[in-house]
Amino acid sequence: MRYELYYWPTIQGRGEFIRLALEEAGADYVDVARRPGERGMAAMLQLMAGKGIAHPPYAPPFLKAGKLVIAQTAEILFYLGPRLKLAPRDEAGRLWAHQLQLTIADLVTHIHDTHHPISGSLYYEEQKPAARRRAESFWRYNGAKMLGYFERVLQGNGGAYTVGRRLSYVDLSVFQIVDGLRYAFPKRMKRFEKKIPGLVTLHDRVAKRPPIKAYLASERRLPFNQWGIFRHYKDLDA
Amino acid sequence: MRYELYYWPTIQGRGEFIRLALEEAGADYVDVARRPGERGMAAMLQLMAGKGIAHPPYAPPFLKAGKLVIAQTAEILFYLGPRLKLAPRDEAGRLWAHQLQLTIADLVTHIHDTHHPISGSLYYEEQKPAARRRAESFWRYNGAKMLGYFERVLQGNGGAYTVGRRLSYVDLSVFQIVDGLRYAFPKRMKRFEKKIPGLVTLHDRVAKRPPIKAYLASERRLPFNQWGIFRHYKDLDA
Repeated sequence: MRYELYYWPTIQGRGEFIRLALEEAGADYVDVARRPGERGMAAMLQLMAGKGIAHPPYAPPFLKAGKLVIAQTAEILFYLGPRLKLAPRDEAGRLWAHQLQLTIADLVTHIHDTHHPISGSLYYEEQKPAARRRAESFWRYNGAKMLGYFERVLQGNGGAYTVGRRLSYVDLSVFQIVDGLRYAFPKRMKRFEKKIPGLVTLHDRVAKRPPIKAYLASERRLPFNQWGIFRHYKDLDA
Repeated sequence: MRYELYYWPTIQGRGEFIRLALEEAGADYVDVARRPGERGMAAMLQLMAGKGIAHPPYAPPFLKAGKLVIAQTAEILFYLGPRLKLAPRDEAGRLWAHQLQLTIADLVTHIHDTHHPISGSLYYEEQKPAARRRAESFWRYNGAKMLGYFERVLQGNGGAYTVGRRLSYVDLSVFQIVDGLRYAFPKRMKRFEKKIPGLVTLHDRVAKRPPIKAYLASERRLPFNQWGIFRHYKDLDA
C-alpha cells in the first residue's frame, strides 16, 4: 500500500507527527504537496474543497490509503498505528495510545496558542502582549502540567516507552514535542528539562534510531521555522 | 453493561456530549461525581491521581466500561458509538464520524477560548480585552468557518443527518453546539443562524426526540452556567 500524505509543504506542523511514523516504519508514502511542481498543492486544495470526495476534511493533514481519505492527526495515527507496527493491536492498547495522542494534540494547540492566543488570522506582532501572557501561563500552568503528566505516564510504564513494551507513534510524538520546545523556547526548556528527564532521554533515543536519524539528516525533514507550531520569539522565552 | 461516566458535577462542559449519547440510547449509566454525597467526586479525583489504574486519564470526562477506563470526549464517543447504535459499524463510517467529532472538539476549544484566551487559570475579568478580540475573531474567521464546514457536510449528506442514514453521536453534538452558542452569544447567533439553516433544523429535531426531550426536561440536564464551555458575557456578544 502506497500512502499519500497531504500537508502544507513548507512547515513541519501537525503533519510532522505523521511523517515521523511513516519514516520510522519505512513505509511507502508520497508527501503529495511537496512533489516538484504545482500539481501536488492543487490536488490537496481540491480535496479540501470537497471535490470528488465523500468525506471532505476540514484541514490538513489528511491521508489517502486506497479509497479511504481520513483527517485529524490523531485519527490518522490511530489508523496507521497497527498497520505500521507502531501501536498495540488489542483494543485496550490501541485506545490507550490514541488517548495519549489526543492529549498530545491538546498540548500542540496550547503550544501554538502561546504565539497566537487571539487568532491564527492575525500576525504575531498584532497579539504580542497576549502572547507573552499566554506563554507565561503555559510554562506555569497547563503546559507544565501536561508535560508532567507524560513524564508520569512514561515512568509508570517502566521509563523506556510510553505505551506497551516497544516503540509506538506516541513515543515519536514525544520526540517531536521535546524537539520543538527546544527550538521555540531554548532558555525555558533548559531549565524545565530537569523536571522531565524521562521524556528527554526518550527524545534522545528516538533521534538515534537508524530510520529517524536518516530522516532527520535528509531533505525530507523540513527545518523548524516561523510558520509552524513551534516558533522562536525571544520575548516569549524569558 | 452499566457504564460509569466521570465528569465535573456542576457543569455541562465536555461531559455533556457523552451524556447526550447515553441518554438518547437509553443506556444504563451512572454519572458518578453527581451521586449524592462526596464519594463520587472522591472516586473521580482518585482515578485522575492514577491510583489503582493502569491508564490514568489527564482530565475528565472519562468512562469506565467494565475494566476499561478511557478518556477524551471524542474517544469515548468513538468507543460508545457502535455499542449504543449511534455510529456506523464499518471502519470507514466509524472513522468519518470520529473525524467529525474531533473537529467538533477543536471547535469546542475555540468556543472555550473566546472567554479564556490567555489562561484557564485566570478569571475572565483578568483577560477581558483579549477575550473581546478572540470572540470577534471566532465569529469572523475560525468559528464561522468551522460552522460553515459542518453545514456543508450536513447538506452534502442529504440534510437530515451528518453521517450515514440515521442519527449518530455527531448529530447530538451538533445539537449541543447550537444550543450552547445560543446561550453564550444570543445576539450573534440570531444573525448567524441564517448561514447554517441545516444545523439549526437538526438542532430542533434532536430536541424533539423523545429520549432527548425527556432528558432536557429532567434534573439530569444541568442548566448552562458561567463555569462551563459556553458562557454568556454581554461584552463578547456585540
